[in-house]
Amino acid sequence: MIVETQCAHFDSLPLDCGEMLSPVTVAYETYGKLNAARSNAILILHAFSGDAHAAGVSRENGKLGWWDSMIGPQKAFDTDRYFVICSNVLGGCRGTTGPSSLNPATGRAYGSAFPVVTIPDMVRLQKKLVDHLGISRLLAVAGGSMGGMQALQWAVAYPEAVASAIPIASAYRHSAQQIAFNEVGRMAIMSDPDWNGGDYYESGPPARGLSVARMIGHITYMSDESMREKFGRRQRPKDELRNGFDVDFEVENYLRYRGGEFVNRFDANSYLYITKAMDNFDLSSGYGSLSGALARTKARFLVISFTSDWLYPSYQSQEIVRALRGHNLDVAYCELQSNYGHDAFLVEVGEQTELVRHFLANTFKKAA
Amino acid sequence: MIVETQCAHFDSLPLDCGEMLSPVTVAYETYGKLNAARSNAILILHAFSGDAHAAGVSRENGKLGWWDSMIGPQKAFDTDRYFVICSNVLGGCRGTTGPSSLNPATGRAYGSAFPVVTIPDMVRLQKKLVDHLGISRLLAVAGGSMGGMQALQWAVAYPEAVASAIPIASAYRHSAQQIAFNEVGRMAIMSDPDWNGGDYYESGPPARGLSVARMIGHITYMSDESMREKFGRRQRPKDELRNGFDVDFEVENYLRYRGGEFVNRFDANSYLYITKAMDNFDLSSGYGSLSGALARTKARFLVISFTSDWLYPSYQSQEIVRALRGHNLDVAYCELQSNYGHDAFLVEVGEQTELVRHFLANTFKKAA
Repeated sequence: MIVETQCAHFDSLPLDCGEMLSPVTVAYETYGKLNAARSNAILILHAFSGDAHAAGVSRENGKLGWWDSMIGPQKAFDTDRYFVICSNVLGGCRGTTGPSSLNPATGRAYGSAFPVVTIPDMVRLQKKLVDHLGISRLLAVAGGSMGGMQALQWAVAYPEAVASAIPIASAYRHSAQQIAFNEVGRMAIMSDPDWNGGDYYESGPPARGLSVARMIGHITYMSDESMREKFGRRQRPKDELRNGFDVDFEVENYLRYRGGEFVNRFDANSYLYITKAMDNFDLSSGYGSLSGALARTKARFLVISFTSDWLYPSYQSQEIVRALRGHNLDVAYCELQSNYGHDAFLVEVGEQTELVRHFLANTFKKAA
Repeated sequence: MIVETQCAHFDSLPLDCGEMLSPVTVAYETYGKLNAARSNAILILHAFSGDAHAAGVSRENGKLGWWDSMIGPQKAFDTDRYFVICSNVLGGCRGTTGPSSLNPATGRAYGSAFPVVTIPDMVRLQKKLVDHLGISRLLAVAGGSMGGMQALQWAVAYPEAVASAIPIASAYRHSAQQIAFNEVGRMAIMSDPDWNGGDYYESGPPARGLSVARMIGHITYMSDESMREKFGRRQRPKDELRNGFDVDFEVENYLRYRGGEFVNRFDANSYLYITKAMDNFDLSSGYGSLSGALARTKARFLVISFTSDWLYPSYQSQEIVRALRGHNLDVAYCELQSNYGHDAFLVEVGEQTELVRHFLANTFKKAA
């Protein structure tokens, strides 16, 4: 399945901060076919560093989508049956308007002049895209981590437009520890002199700071156990030229490699804006409580968490499930056994596929 | 109790790397009185960023010692009964020879010319100090975190000189995750241009990198629960001048404050050398196995861990306990309930005091 990222353009988008962003571009991909009743559309919502290329082989660079194991013919999100959409988030750097986009007021990249964006802003832009595609009701909104936050926001902000929601390894708001990890990543970036107050698009990115931020991220995406299985205390081959603080252990080499690689595909300012959006997100905000917020939704829910995920621990999913059950909503919850930590939502395909396939089929039947 | 840090000077110290360090200074403090039989001496071993000032009020700056709640008259390490010693580790920056010390070969600070040091090197220097004080056998060696590693090393390297060992919230070697967190801290420091390859003593320290490294550290010292209790999602007062990436949440403010404060009291190169010593430490090394190493010891053991400590999880203490029990050694193990994470060994005074007092009294009785 060769796929191509497309773009939709809109004149403007009102933001929670009070500003109007204008113009706005959304990068997105679609897989499968929209049926005549326009009732089989599923919106996939990506995590922090994801993009619109969720499935198939990119025509541009030949790469597989980030959730290709879950989206495609006969897969969890079965493109023989459903029309699947994925878009890059607002504030991102993979085609959708973000801090690296051209600021029409200056003719240069926004940099730090980009307005503060929120998860509800991201979802508001997705709603524009879905309207633009002629879809008035989504069969499902689904995503892991920050994607789960967006799925929750969709279900609460647009109750008529969402038949079901699948938040995976997610939370309705960040804990102090989650904020803390994001803050250290931001400080690593902003401490790099090359960040230059956010205006580095002509001088070169804060590569070292962004790399350190990503290294921290990768530790939190894995688990103590998965790191032991993958690396243990295995050492790198001895190198005569090596000094005392070069790489000794495989785990160090892996983190440095992943940190460096990230710099080539991600914008440091997007890192700042998107992590802030996650930290500031609180689904209960404006509704008095989580229960008050979820009282608005009319969706069915499938909530999934993973035993070894310490970044988005199961108790955070269970808070959502309890609040949904309090409203007698149709909610299934599964805590899946996995050693992969937070990465499990990307890696654990088998059991997730069973759960999602069955849930979507039932939703389709009930919605029909 | 007003105390003063003293210094002992030695001509040289052979290191595991094959080099000879010369001369060597050890900063230390003592509390209480050595008895006539010289049988009541306890060596306290500090954690990564600690120093010789473990108890009492410093004559120099009026500050309380880092374990003052545990060391003093009628406290866990009762200075009415025991003679307590604490020294700054080799490679440190609080009086003992380290990378910020004068390199006699150049007349300038060592910087990156300082040799790689190990936990066994640190303990070898402590042994010199203890010999210098005229003590042939310690009633106990005790410490948390890296202090626990040193206690284990003492018991194995000098079995005749150690009547008992109290490793708290520690491990016999670092896991991949522990190495990973240290590596990110090192990369934050080395990514700061002010690090300058380790030679910054005339130009000024890599303050931003060291601060980021410390922020990461603080997250790992707390627990999800203690961070929720202490900070939750509490926001800082709104400030009109604030931009989008300034401090929004109290937890961010706390981490930035602690990071900045650390720069004033700790040397970035010591951070690199000491974390490498921890990562490279493996008590089993040279003995085939942990059990093989511990077969050498003749000490009684009190091993303590804490339920919410995810940096040095209880299973790491239990590995040590199992290996000790395999040799029919006298070992008591206690996993204490605490929400404080790794910091618990500094904070949880009540139960630790009960355990330690009783254990020391029994050791003293049996050794007599």
